[in-house]
Amino acid sequence: MTPPRSRAAALELDAEEPLRGLRELFELPAGLIYLDGNSLGPVPRATAGRLAARVGREWGEALIAGWSHHDWLGLPRRLGARLAPLLGAEADEVLVADSTSVNLFKVVAAACALRPARRRIVTQAGIFPTDRYVLDGLVRLSGRELEVVTAEAPLAALAEDVACVVLSHVDYRSGALHDLAGITAAVHAAGGLVVWDLSHSAGAVPIELGAAAADFAVGCGYKYLNGGPGAPAFLFVARRHQAAAENPLSGWLGHRRPFGFEPSYQPAAGIDRFQTGTPPVLALTAFEVGIETVLAAPLEQLRAKSLALSETFIALVEARCPAAGLTLLTPREAARRGSQVAFRHPHAEALIQALAARGVVGDFRPPDVLRFGLAPLYVRFVDLWDAVEALREALAARVWEDAAFEAPHAVP
Amino acid sequence: MTPPRSRAAALELDAEEPLRGLRELFELPAGLIYLDGNSLGPVPRATAGRLAARVGREWGEALIAGWSHHDWLGLPRRLGARLAPLLGAEADEVLVADSTSVNLFKVVAAACALRPARRRIVTQAGIFPTDRYVLDGLVRLSGRELEVVTAEAPLAALAEDVACVVLSHVDYRSGALHDLAGITAAVHAAGGLVVWDLSHSAGAVPIELGAAAADFAVGCGYKYLNGGPGAPAFLFVARRHQAAAENPLSGWLGHRRPFGFEPSYQPAAGIDRFQTGTPPVLALTAFEVGIETVLAAPLEQLRAKSLALSETFIALVEARCPAAGLTLLTPREAARRGSQVAFRHPHAEALIQALAARGVVGDFRPPDVLRFGLAPLYVRFVDLWDAVEALREALAARVWEDAAFEAPHAVP
Repeated sequence: MTPPRSRAAALELDAEEPLRGLRELFELPAGLIYLDGNSLGPVPRATAGRLAARVGREWGEALIAGWSHHDWLGLPRRLGARLAPLLGAEADEVLVADSTSVNLFKVVAAACALRPARRRIVTQAGIFPTDRYVLDGLVRLSGRELEVVTAEAPLAALAEDVACVVLSHVDYRSGALHDLAGITAAVHAAGGLVVWDLSHSAGAVPIELGAAAADFAVGCGYKYLNGGPGAPAFLFVARRHQAAAENPLSGWLGHRRPFGFEPSYQPAAGIDRFQTGTPPVLALTAFEVGIETVLAAPLEQLRAKSLALSETFIALVEARCPAAGLTLLTPREAARRGSQVAFRHPHAEALIQALAARGVVGDFRPPDVLRFGLAPLYVRFVDLWDAVEALREALAARVWEDAAFEAPHAVP
Repeated sequence: MTPPRSRAAALELDAEEPLRGLRELFELPAGLIYLDGNSLGPVPRATAGRLAARVGREWGEALIAGWSHHDWLGLPRRLGARLAPLLGAEADEVLVADSTSVNLFKVVAAACALRPARRRIVTQAGIFPTDRYVLDGLVRLSGRELEVVTAEAPLAALAEDVACVVLSHVDYRSGALHDLAGITAAVHAAGGLVVWDLSHSAGAVPIELGAAAADFAVGCGYKYLNGGPGAPAFLFVARRHQAAAENPLSGWLGHRRPFGFEPSYQPAAGIDRFQTGTPPVLALTAFEVGIETVLAAPLEQLRAKSLALSETFIALVEARCPAAGLTLLTPREAARRGSQVAFRHPHAEALIQALAARGVVGDFRPPDVLRFGLAPLYVRFVDLWDAVEALREALAARVWEDAAFEAPHAVP
């Protein structure tokens, strides 16, 4: 594509863009260009008020009765139902609970138990590290085996003696979008099940879990879903698996009658059995506001804007920073791209620091990746123009030779 | 003891009581007598403001940089360190994370792995149900065995082939306080380890984990610690176990270098290895305020007031509701009592409902228990007088014969 040729042209693109009003849903610091919403979404304007109401009018006035009078107990299912359309799932197939890591443990253990004769779990070397660490812990405890493969192609061939394949929908570094339906079908054909990590796609990329006959999924609440730092995560269990799937973290809220205080565990009939402890009501309150920001626009429009942003960004970088040592890591083909763009550069860490000093927030992923999240709810074309201008300046200044360069901040 | 003989006498006790000012730390609805803080603590006055500041000034302005600039990443340890004196633990032995149920899974699995030749986990039949359900899930996944015993006495004898004994410090129904040091020593003598659930004691009863040479513990943030509905929970791992104890939920925040994005899991050196997913920053914010309410008074004074409240309550009930069918379930001996008082009555459920209709909030535990939490931070002697007066009236009115009686609300 031809990128805008000037800042004014970028501003014109913004003025014509149908989702431009959605930026007003957020509190964004003046002058900051925030291209890290794939790591932590910004604060919705409604969050503080919603929290204050839940604290003051609900917890403060109803106290213990809030669990029933305000249906705090229903929050994990209610939020799951609101997320479901973003995932192509039914309302009763999604639950909000715990962290992504804890949910992954739950659903991978459940998937394995549905394939008891198969001993192996397969994942990709490039998956987000916590997924791999969680699988390490699960195999140590359960006596299964973990196999780590380096590309997605061999997965179908491997799947014949594999209980479960664990994959990211969008690669956290490159932003590559995997073929959810195709891989799911291939693993199914070999008799295995798939667990998808949707952390880097949910809220920015349409997901069709139902159409793909997906089995299990998990995902993060604080990236494109704007649920706040460390927001609760979500999980998906296809309805056809719900009656047989066992949650290994069988806590009381997953019990059929949590308030019967019965001596033995009887799992709830549906997705509720994947609850464990008491729902984190305040965190769920902030997450609900975050979900609402994404529901404010049709997901297809968000996807269209996201792709326009990423194509523009790639084209601007390549046009304005030629021969600068940057290598595009993200697929050029739109259908294979999530909502982030990554470049390799030998001095990626220093460049990300220099951009931050110029008010442009992206992030660094070791060893050499500059990663930019282009969240369609609030990122503008003019932000891309300004960010690329700052990048061009940083490259020209050879910022990595600056003695003031220091290690970057840690970012979940 | 001789209870106050009149409402005026109860008011006099309040006027002389050294902790009377602490009630002002909370927003308590006018006219409500809240004897359910052992189930959900009330909202501290500071919570809403602290949340608003974290949302607006930290998340809103620092965005992703909040993890380092505001040390959100340090919250699990910082809150653990603040809790430590309440538990008789060192600052680096306590971590705030996840739910009580999830934490129990983590530390019981870790304890078992430290005793690999011993196959059995032992718990009590009367433990809070989620503990037992979690143990069910763990033994299903790990191939160990669970034995449920009906009293604490045989525990030491059983422990010879037992890896780990899981017990409540204070029984959630009766309020009985178990001998933490004595039981720990007996299990140690037999070569086993003990995991204590402190949910019903932390914040109201002094706990001496260090002096007792305790191994592991978990506990709840939303009861006496006033952290809000579904607040994060805490866990304790004795320093001597930290280097060898393995967290089975090995997520990235428990890694030695979480932001190194390394392919294999290397546990952090200390208590941090018991982290799993990204810390729930907003929920931790509310929990920190809750912890501060308890730190506002010396724990010995809180304990003294708690015991004065429970002795007064028992004496008032027995003096003013004689021959009413109420049987005290809580130990009379102060040293064996937590901070709650429970009575049995064949119509417990209807009585709790009738009390609620009179503005007195206690709770019902099946099949026949009326349970009253006497949180020393905000419960007054006059509240006890009024509550017993309401109970006397409900008994006299035989409320269980009232057609309007319906099943109570669900209460975590």
